[in-house]
Amino acid sequence: MVSSNVARRIRLLGLDVDGVLTDNSIVIGLVEGVRVEFKRFDIQDGLGLGLLRGSSIDVVWVSGRESAATMLRASELRIREVLQVPAIGKLEAVEALLARRGLGWEHMAFVGDDLADAEVLQRVGLPIAVANAVEEIKRLAAFVTTRPGGHGAVREVVEALLKARGEWERAIAPYTGSPVA
Amino acid sequence: MVSSNVARRIRLLGLDVDGVLTDNSIVIGLVEGVRVEFKRFDIQDGLGLGLLRGSSIDVVWVSGRESAATMLRASELRIREVLQVPAIGKLEAVEALLARRGLGWEHMAFVGDDLADAEVLQRVGLPIAVANAVEEIKRLAAFVTTRPGGHGAVREVVEALLKARGEWERAIAPYTGSPVA
Amino acid sequence: MVSSNVARRIRLLGLDVDGVLTDNSIVIGLVEGVRVEFKRFDIQDGLGLGLLRGSSIDVVWVSGRESAATMLRASELRIREVLQVPAIGKLEAVEALLARRGLGWEHMAFVGDDLADAEVLQRVGLPIAVANAVEEIKRLAAFVTTRPGGHGAVREVVEALLKARGEWERAIAPYTGSPVA
Amino acid sequence: MVSSNVARRIRLLGLDVDGVLTDNSIVIGLVEGVRVEFKRFDIQDGLGLGLLRGSSIDVVWVSGRESAATMLRASELRIREVLQVPAIGKLEAVEALLARRGLGWEHMAFVGDDLADAEVLQRVGLPIAVANAVEEIKRLAAFVTTRPGGHGAVREVVEALLKARGEWERAIAPYTGSPVA
Repeated sequence: MVSSNVARRIRLLGLDVDGVLTDNSIVIGLVEGVRVEFKRFDIQDGLGLGLLRGSSIDVVWVSGRESAATMLRASELRIREVLQVPAIGKLEAVEALLARRGLGWEHMAFVGDDLADAEVLQRVGLPIAVANAVEEIKRLAAFVTTRPGGHGAVREVVEALLKARGEWERAIAPYTGSPVA
Repeated sequence: MVSSNVARRIRLLGLDVDGVLTDNSIVIGLVEGVRVEFKRFDIQDGLGLGLLRGSSIDVVWVSGRESAATMLRASELRIREVLQVPAIGKLEAVEALLARRGLGWEHMAFVGDDLADAEVLQRVGLPIAVANAVEEIKRLAAFVTTRPGGHGAVREVVEALLKARGEWERAIAPYTGSPVA
Repeated sequence: MVSSNVARRIRLLGLDVDGVLTDNSIVIGLVEGVRVEFKRFDIQDGLGLGLLRGSSIDVVWVSGRESAATMLRASELRIREVLQVPAIGKLEAVEALLARRGLGWEHMAFVGDDLADAEVLQRVGLPIAVANAVEEIKRLAAFVTTRPGGHGAVREVVEALLKARGEWERAIAPYTGSPVA
Repeated sequence: MVSSNVARRIRLLGLDVDGVLTDNSIVIGLVEGVRVEFKRFDIQDGLGLGLLRGSSIDVVWVSGRESAATMLRASELRIREVLQVPAIGKLEAVEALLARRGLGWEHMAFVGDDLADAEVLQRVGLPIAVANAVEEIKRLAAFVTTRPGGHGAVREVVEALLKARGEWERAIAPYTGSPVA
């Protein structure tokens, strides 16, 4: 459960990419002599991120790897900011981002799965780990999802956040015609 | 279980694509500078949809995303109509389809997994959710499959429908030589 | 368990492809305007089929779909004969194959997962179903694997066959240096 | 558990590729008339191998198949040596490698899943099998991972090794800022 007090303060949801928006796999091959990398994203996560668009929470992706696949998916989900930084460098990147936006650590939720997310998770107001996170990361989290990355973990986070803020029914109303009882 | 009375009325089976005919994944990468999207379909689902060809039930796919992969698979399974509409827009698209074919909502079964399917499921004669559907969708369904999307959920729906109509043995006879006892 | 008497008679192992050598998925996309289909094969199955090369059992793949991916994998595993026939047409194809090779149905084992394999399984000396086979197929099988297709089912069949024939230790000796106790 | 005495002696970690760094799948298709092979690697394994870079353990990959995908992934993880040899030929290749580096068998740990790894595992100081290894290989192992290949098995091996050597906290310190309690 995410506490209402904490959730209502959140203005920015930061998502690690590999292991959070994906199942931690990269699929690699050589096509006509050029390295091609595929990533597997989850459609239910995509709809979930769409539900945030009507809220006051913005979304940023923070990856420790550069990947064209990540940029393609971010673009189709209209994620306006994607930070692709060295694995040991997320803290500085997020700090600069918060400063640029005039936000404090307490305004941010972050979802991670691996050591590269540790420093950010130690500081944000709402640290979240996916079900498949390593132990060091789970220990830092206020909330651990039941679903693994790439299989609905992000959807679960969005739902938990919006419900804790009392905004869930309004968010899904466009899909259900009227609020679902 | 699907009731015989309801099943015998069905003339059209509508299928959402992502999460129903697939496992909700999209696999994305950049090949020679161009975005390429792969989808994972299930072969047992394909044979199942073939079994419907001898029946009086037609099949239509209704997707909230445009995807070349969807069109390729629909074409090889000889699905004559594929609606690729905005996620919030399935209701209108299906309504127009039924009008065009002179059918009522009671003649339609629909299989969905996510919020974009909610309005259609609230109206069709036989609303079905896959095992991996979100809770809001399962609550609307008269029948929830035991198998997840992309792993035989559609095959299970076809079998349930044809058995409820007493048409299963005849449908599989071409494969078994004589009806299997 | 496979009986020694039945196993010793086998001269030909027939394998359905989708759902037996793969997990029943096809992964489809459009690359530069051309349909591309990927299949997922299992490496442990490949080594298993290699173990048969020193035995008197030949291997044939019998698929109800045409697929370049199937031909590529068959070629690298040195499978000399691949039948790609219509789904309702395996019986005739296998019958002709047996005649061509001067073999009877009792000399053949066949591994299948779906209705298209039913007629062949009703006739072969050793009918085998994978763990993920549909019920109609499992009912026809003398042996059902514990591992699903694409995840070692074929390796399991090879091991069961060679053990029932008392040929396992000799088959794996090249890998272990000396027979493993 | 890995014993501290054995772990402290290790100077070289050898990894089979298929089934250890991957889930044993190969994904094959034809793109513009050319065979393309994709492999699925795990990102948490990648970070794990990075943790070894500050230690005195070097890493070598030893595959029984040639694959461009393997070379691509090895290169981005800065694995300096990759042996792609015939499946029955790993023993000779590893023997030559140890001689070249002036190391003995007791200095090597090796992780395998299938028969092609048997001879090497019978000789190395620390033989390790992944959760999805065949029985013959598990029997040879001093340590069997709980996670399967391609889903964190290599990360688990790295963690077990570094913890047994008392080097874990120092290895992860760059990610955590200070040692995690």
